[in-house]
Amino acid sequence: MTQNKFVNGAENLVKTLIHNEVTVCFANPGTSEMHFVAALDKASGMRSVLGLFEGVVTGAADGYYRISGKPAATLLHLGPGLGNGLANLHNAKKAGSGVVNIVGEHATYHIECNAPLTSNIQMLATPMSDWVKTSLHPSEVAKDGAEAISVARTAPGKVATLILPADTAWGDSGGFIHQSTFSSRTHVQSSLISKAAEILKRHKVAILLGGVGVRGRCLELAGQIASKSGCTLLSEYNNALMNRGAGVVRTQRIPYAVNDAVEFLRPYDFIILVGSKIPVAFFAYPEKPSYLASERTEIFQLASTEEDIEASLNDLAETIGAGSINQQLIPIYKKEVDPTGAITNLGIAQIISNNMPEGAIVVDESISTGRAFELPTSTALRHDWLNIMGGSIGFGLPTAIGASIAAPNRVVLALEGDGSAMYTFQSLWTMARENLNIKVLIFANQSYKILKGELKGIEASSIGVQAEKMLSLNQPSIDWVSLSKGLGVDSVKVNDLSEFSKIFQFAVSSRGPFLIQIDCS
Amino acid sequence: MTQNKFVNGAENLVKTLIHNEVTVCFANPGTSEMHFVAALDKASGMRSVLGLFEGVVTGAADGYYRISGKPAATLLHLGPGLGNGLANLHNAKKAGSGVVNIVGEHATYHIECNAPLTSNIQMLATPMSDWVKTSLHPSEVAKDGAEAISVARTAPGKVATLILPADTAWGDSGGFIHQSTFSSRTHVQSSLISKAAEILKRHKVAILLGGVGVRGRCLELAGQIASKSGCTLLSEYNNALMNRGAGVVRTQRIPYAVNDAVEFLRPYDFIILVGSKIPVAFFAYPEKPSYLASERTEIFQLASTEEDIEASLNDLAETIGAGSINQQLIPIYKKEVDPTGAITNLGIAQIISNNMPEGAIVVDESISTGRAFELPTSTALRHDWLNIMGGSIGFGLPTAIGASIAAPNRVVLALEGDGSAMYTFQSLWTMARENLNIKVLIFANQSYKILKGELKGIEASSIGVQAEKMLSLNQPSIDWVSLSKGLGVDSVKVNDLSEFSKIFQFAVSSRGPFLIQIDCS
Repeated sequence: MTQNKFVNGAENLVKTLIHNEVTVCFANPGTSEMHFVAALDKASGMRSVLGLFEGVVTGAADGYYRISGKPAATLLHLGPGLGNGLANLHNAKKAGSGVVNIVGEHATYHIECNAPLTSNIQMLATPMSDWVKTSLHPSEVAKDGAEAISVARTAPGKVATLILPADTAWGDSGGFIHQSTFSSRTHVQSSLISKAAEILKRHKVAILLGGVGVRGRCLELAGQIASKSGCTLLSEYNNALMNRGAGVVRTQRIPYAVNDAVEFLRPYDFIILVGSKIPVAFFAYPEKPSYLASERTEIFQLASTEEDIEASLNDLAETIGAGSINQQLIPIYKKEVDPTGAITNLGIAQIISNNMPEGAIVVDESISTGRAFELPTSTALRHDWLNIMGGSIGFGLPTAIGASIAAPNRVVLALEGDGSAMYTFQSLWTMARENLNIKVLIFANQSYKILKGELKGIEASSIGVQAEKMLSLNQPSIDWVSLSKGLGVDSVKVNDLSEFSKIFQFAVSSRGPFLIQIDCS
Repeated sequence: MTQNKFVNGAENLVKTLIHNEVTVCFANPGTSEMHFVAALDKASGMRSVLGLFEGVVTGAADGYYRISGKPAATLLHLGPGLGNGLANLHNAKKAGSGVVNIVGEHATYHIECNAPLTSNIQMLATPMSDWVKTSLHPSEVAKDGAEAISVARTAPGKVATLILPADTAWGDSGGFIHQSTFSSRTHVQSSLISKAAEILKRHKVAILLGGVGVRGRCLELAGQIASKSGCTLLSEYNNALMNRGAGVVRTQRIPYAVNDAVEFLRPYDFIILVGSKIPVAFFAYPEKPSYLASERTEIFQLASTEEDIEASLNDLAETIGAGSINQQLIPIYKKEVDPTGAITNLGIAQIISNNMPEGAIVVDESISTGRAFELPTSTALRHDWLNIMGGSIGFGLPTAIGASIAAPNRVVLALEGDGSAMYTFQSLWTMARENLNIKVLIFANQSYKILKGELKGIEASSIGVQAEKMLSLNQPSIDWVSLSKGLGVDSVKVNDLSEFSKIFQFAVSSRGPFLIQIDCS
């Protein structure tokens, strides 16, 4: 047997990643990851992007997958580093985003020492991962890495956590690289297609689209089906990525509030799920239902998020003989005159809609302010809209980073509530370093406004002093312009809609990151 | 049976906390915690402190316990909120800090819906908790809460995670309040005392003090023992809280670097552990030991962290007939002239030491810059020094918040590396809102400098482009003054030691939070 040249586990893993087209690594490394960091220089073809907090790293990987359809790697430091990344890993998992989540671990023999940074990484990773494995030997890390990549690519995209002990990283790997696999989506049974066609013929039906069902060819097919059958096209409240705007078949979005959602779904005899889930309330409330469809409405699943959604729509369209699309389902671009005067949520929405460039990517963490945005932006130029899928705030700024790295020539708009933006504000620094074309809009209402609404919902009386303190971000007011400059991103605060119109137009027409603070009520 | 007035579970839990002297709640709530938030106004006696990120919340609880010796409550929003708090919960657990960590959960019946924010909270909490329980019914929440408090108070202090489903919070509790218990520390067996006395008589011995062993009466007793027996007093590299400075018995700290630590411990035949752990390396390295004591050195545990450390020292002192303390063990206050000229780490240390007021609390997350601080500050006025116990960065600023709330009349110094400070910079806002007397020193070397050292340690060649990018915080440089102002904290950047001396003296003599940026190399 000939002796191979010494290639350590970290180098072999990096090579395996690159070989399998995982070519971006969002990282925040520590001591136990130094061999991996060193390996980044030894293999060409990996773009490494530093985040100054792990929530930036995992959120960026989510955004990267949503736009590119390819998993990125992360690099996190032991249990606490993973801990810091869990919230956005949760969002990624709920979004169906593929992530090769690499977490450093102490050398295997060092774990028994219970050193300060020791913790049960495997247990920590499990709730926010679809797959977890500790790679126990340098000769196995390429195989384990390839398996992680295969899992991450499984439809719609999975979070695969690979734990990398330091001695696996520094030991001799043998140098063999493994190939990952692609598994294609499962075709739904033809009996389900016939059943769906039957339902469409006989009942008042809504097709609830989800996952890739709200994109490209799927939306066209759904539009054909709706035009032929008269059914209604719905979308979930949150979508990982939806194609929207002028020229794109429009869906009606299930409202957030429980009572509104129940009323919205009440008219239908059947809801056909296509890549979507059974509609449930975001939170439970006393005396309100968890399931949003009424008891008389039957739920029929045509295709799950994992199955071949496009094929199911194609088969259904063929079965019912669907053809052209009713033009009323397709919005036309309306450029109106930008509103002026005092800042209102609707005014903001109108200005965004009027001036958003074609192909913009909108990362929406606007929470309460954004409730006004849906209708006005439906007639904007064609764009992609990304929602927070796991409800864990601090998602928007990091996700915008990943989206921009996946599509450097598109304008990314990050619509941010101030409460949410504060969670992962470190993102601004990465935007500046990588000169990403991201425009951050901070809607500064100086409170967790959505929570004030929730508290009023449970308390008939007024909000008390302590509760008010827990839900307000004033005292002191946050100066977002100063924060943004501190991290190297140019920024401006606007005081009325005219200023916002002017600055927003400037921002989307210039290159690089920019932040606009908009004080809202 | 008479019907009690309706008291919901959240109100009953808040009352139980206050009844059991848990009177501070660090919080970052969400919708599922609204009944708890409402309850904060219905019971008097709870101070609620908002953090704009959960890492602030859990770190503050750690600092509060270290200074007050009493657990605070936290309030976190579901699994992702807990996730964001895990890193500092890890530090708290490793510090032996008692925390009543309250995590909201969906209503019990809502969990099966798999709504966006659903995750396995119990599994997430387990690695960073000493105790985890989900309170499944409003009538049990007071009992569960009291149990959590009892656990949190168990020596040296434990992390007790209580998961609070929304329907437990909003349902009828019955209104009964439960009493928590105190369990005292176990006395060590007298045979161990005799054995230790025997060892001291016959061998070259180091007593390694840890936990409360590096405080108050314990240090005095250890000083007596060392004076009588000639043994050496050591302390661990990191300590949750150490009394230091003029008039306090001084210990020698085990160095961080593995080779240095091994040499440092080599002379001793025996190491007697008193509230400390077997010395281990922070990280594993190829060809270096995980255990720092050489094979010829015997380890003898006199008292664990959980046992009665003071009594064990007292018994040992009596057994060997120890009395007065050799004055060479006790530093005398030396006020020297502040150095001037270009900024050096030693110059910074000297100025801090000269001007730190008596009773200052030093929260030390200075990482590489702080390596120079130990010796100069050993002759400062009497103070407390708090280290990062779990190695999870982002600890310093939040911990300073909790320390300051526990001791509002003391000056708190937060010594921060720039890389670490960026993790939980949201803390500044809470310092401003609560007008806490915290002076933040940012040592801005614009890199993860400790990691550059680690990388050089494994790579004979120079650091490559990608690796350099992963370890540098320049491009862009972070403007800490701008960041600080953005969050409402006055701040100044100093350019040389004369300026630092002047500004530091101003800062410690004025009230409220203040930040000084010091550019270091």
